[in-house]
Amino acid sequence: MAKASIAKGMRDFTSFEVLRREYIISVIRNVFESFGYGPLETPSMENLETLTGKYGDEGDKLIFRVLKSGDFLKSVPENLERNASTWSSLISDKALRYDLTVPFARFLANNRNDIKLPFKRFQIQPVWRADRPQKGRFREFYQCDADVVGSNSLWQEVELMQMYARVFDALLLPVKIRISSRRILADMAEFCGVGDRFMAFCIILDKVDKVGVEEVVRQWVELGVPTEKAQQLIDIIALRGEPAVEALKALGATGNGLEEVSWVIEKFSKFNSDSVLEFDPSLARGLDYYTGCIFEVEALNSSFGSLGGGGRYADLTGIFGLKDVPGVGISFGLDRIFLALEEADLFPDSIQDAPDVLGVQLSEDSAETVFRVVSQLRENCVIAEFYPDAVKLKKQLDYAHQRGIRYVVIIGENELANNTLQLKDMKEGEQFEIDMEDFMENPINYLDLN
Amino acid sequence: MAKASIAKGMRDFTSFEVLRREYIISVIRNVFESFGYGPLETPSMENLETLTGKYGDEGDKLIFRVLKSGDFLKSVPENLERNASTWSSLISDKALRYDLTVPFARFLANNRNDIKLPFKRFQIQPVWRADRPQKGRFREFYQCDADVVGSNSLWQEVELMQMYARVFDALLLPVKIRISSRRILADMAEFCGVGDRFMAFCIILDKVDKVGVEEVVRQWVELGVPTEKAQQLIDIIALRGEPAVEALKALGATGNGLEEVSWVIEKFSKFNSDSVLEFDPSLARGLDYYTGCIFEVEALNSSFGSLGGGGRYADLTGIFGLKDVPGVGISFGLDRIFLALEEADLFPDSIQDAPDVLGVQLSEDSAETVFRVVSQLRENCVIAEFYPDAVKLKKQLDYAHQRGIRYVVIIGENELANNTLQLKDMKEGEQFEIDMEDFMENPINYLDLN
Repeated sequence: MAKASIAKGMRDFTSFEVLRREYIISVIRNVFESFGYGPLETPSMENLETLTGKYGDEGDKLIFRVLKSGDFLKSVPENLERNASTWSSLISDKALRYDLTVPFARFLANNRNDIKLPFKRFQIQPVWRADRPQKGRFREFYQCDADVVGSNSLWQEVELMQMYARVFDALLLPVKIRISSRRILADMAEFCGVGDRFMAFCIILDKVDKVGVEEVVRQWVELGVPTEKAQQLIDIIALRGEPAVEALKALGATGNGLEEVSWVIEKFSKFNSDSVLEFDPSLARGLDYYTGCIFEVEALNSSFGSLGGGGRYADLTGIFGLKDVPGVGISFGLDRIFLALEEADLFPDSIQDAPDVLGVQLSEDSAETVFRVVSQLRENCVIAEFYPDAVKLKKQLDYAHQRGIRYVVIIGENELANNTLQLKDMKEGEQFEIDMEDFMENPINYLDLN
Repeated sequence: MAKASIAKGMRDFTSFEVLRREYIISVIRNVFESFGYGPLETPSMENLETLTGKYGDEGDKLIFRVLKSGDFLKSVPENLERNASTWSSLISDKALRYDLTVPFARFLANNRNDIKLPFKRFQIQPVWRADRPQKGRFREFYQCDADVVGSNSLWQEVELMQMYARVFDALLLPVKIRISSRRILADMAEFCGVGDRFMAFCIILDKVDKVGVEEVVRQWVELGVPTEKAQQLIDIIALRGEPAVEALKALGATGNGLEEVSWVIEKFSKFNSDSVLEFDPSLARGLDYYTGCIFEVEALNSSFGSLGGGGRYADLTGIFGLKDVPGVGISFGLDRIFLALEEADLFPDSIQDAPDVLGVQLSEDSAETVFRVVSQLRENCVIAEFYPDAVKLKKQLDYAHQRGIRYVVIIGENELANNTLQLKDMKEGEQFEIDMEDFMENPINYLDLN
């Protein structure tokens, strides 16, 4: 007998969970579509060389590689030294999608002649990472991305921030959108005299929420930043909005990052007075392909961390030979949003995974009539289930109760003779005898549905 | 520069294709849900031992195995003989889902204490097979399954056949549902004196559409069937419906397969007079876990082969230690249905992957006003896109044309002064000046939307 356990870091989703996840996805998707973004789906597996080298050394280790089919060992020379990395590139030529961005870039490069720019696409698909599973971290999870490529216009940033606002409005989840720019971070690194170690400077700052300001200062100093400047900067990084802009200007920030961020905030605020978009100089974001504005969304009144993020990149497809395609994109974290909605009890009551009506069987004789009623209910948009076996009524009612089915249709000999049925309301504990034909034709006169 | 090619046997789906695939899925899903089936999602990866040994030797070879992370070679003893099969079980412990049935069985076994029987679930997810790619055969494709477990009632067969009928009615695709039973096939094998080689007998018959009747007879005889009996049976297999039932009875079929199939057809016909459900003794179906009724759907007036199939199984979860759970299920073949709808031009015109309106930019000055109009249109359920750059009007109109966007909103200096806008209908070639506020509040008075 085989062991029947789920693989490590993987999840089954029951109907309760699937319907709630789909609710979130449908809200996100409706916003994407209303802004003119179209769906794209790329395959789960890519050629290994499409993925490797795109996510840094740490990322490469987390890519799930798929073994070649057939006699994969014949690709390995006899007496080859045993080295996992050398071997894996010989015995594996495909890998599972690690994110949605690199496959999107590959798609763009493949279809460069058919695509009209600006090209707006969204993509909602699972990705896989061989991370050590822990609370809230899984080896398979969904990413929900929207990107537009082919335009340098900052209106795109405004539009994407508006999309964030619309989604979280629709979910009734109060959020704050934080914005900064890689150009501002470059100014900071320049000020500190470590402009040539820009990525290292950002990666240290990116961890400020986890490790605290003192540790950031310590690591910056280790990187070569004079202590005084590190201290000066870390004080500014605690500021938000206009004071942060002013402080950075006073420091001598010369790039146009501050201007760009201010412009986006100004335009956004004109159209979205209810939503918070705030300049946050502590925002760094780890992905190294961002070059312009960067964003992150977090729930107010909650400690779930980031619910999504994104940014602008000057060149995404250059690695695949398609030059000069700038873009900007946002991403939503489905699992975190799920937890935030669950905690705040914000899933709508209308999400239900139980049918409205159960037709039960009292005898083989009446079964056909009950089946007919149930079939007709479905034609009239009622979700109806037929209990397949003529077992004891109590067992069938227990099933309805456990499934959370509110109404039960019962047809016995009397009802069969009178052309009626008994409608039992499991919630109110009431039962009515009603005309069978009228019920089938006008079920909503009798049923209180969600 | 990395090679940017899609992996062999894999597909990208553009918005045109995604929306059409989703149309099919939504029709199938609505029917599943209206019958009280709930969604289940299982992970893409299962432990290797959950999958191996479930699909026969040929199936095992087609399972995509995932390489262990880290130093996978340390699981391999030094000087181990080079044998792909031995090695792969050491260096790989996970594999990609090969179908939806085995993971469903694993889920049932894992959750045996929480599940109320009868349990109805549907599952619409991709599966992966390391088949040699060829026309119409891919290495990643969707399966759409509905199964009910925990009841022996033939009403479930009636219900599932009704679900087939409802789906293809809704898709406007005329189909024939073929039904038979493994018990009838067992009778045939018995009649031929090869009852102990039942599966081999079925597998030969299953290929009749591909290889023809003469080859089936030849292979049966090779299996040990007397030539005369093989000939007698192959003549019956050409019959359909009642004549086939009568002929098999005359042959001395003793099991209750014929009775069961006739009962299902009789009940089904009472509720679905427009649909064709026909006994077809040539139906065999390759999967070896079926034990009762088996079904297959094919398009009338078309040569796409099977659009779906299914059957009853006495024991699906026994392999995972959960005994006595009978079930019955159906499956839809998304790719074949797609091709059939495409050939018959049956995708609804309402499926559109272009926005309704494009707001263009004549100058930086008017951009903000156009952006406001476009934002307001979305609030009123119009899919609207904002062209991000103030490039030449012709370029923006070309973009609208190529994207298939019907309406363009243009605001110049005059319109800005008059608080109006120009609405250009790209389809009719007309252009109107209209009041800006009225247009934003009541766009459907001006737009002819799908």
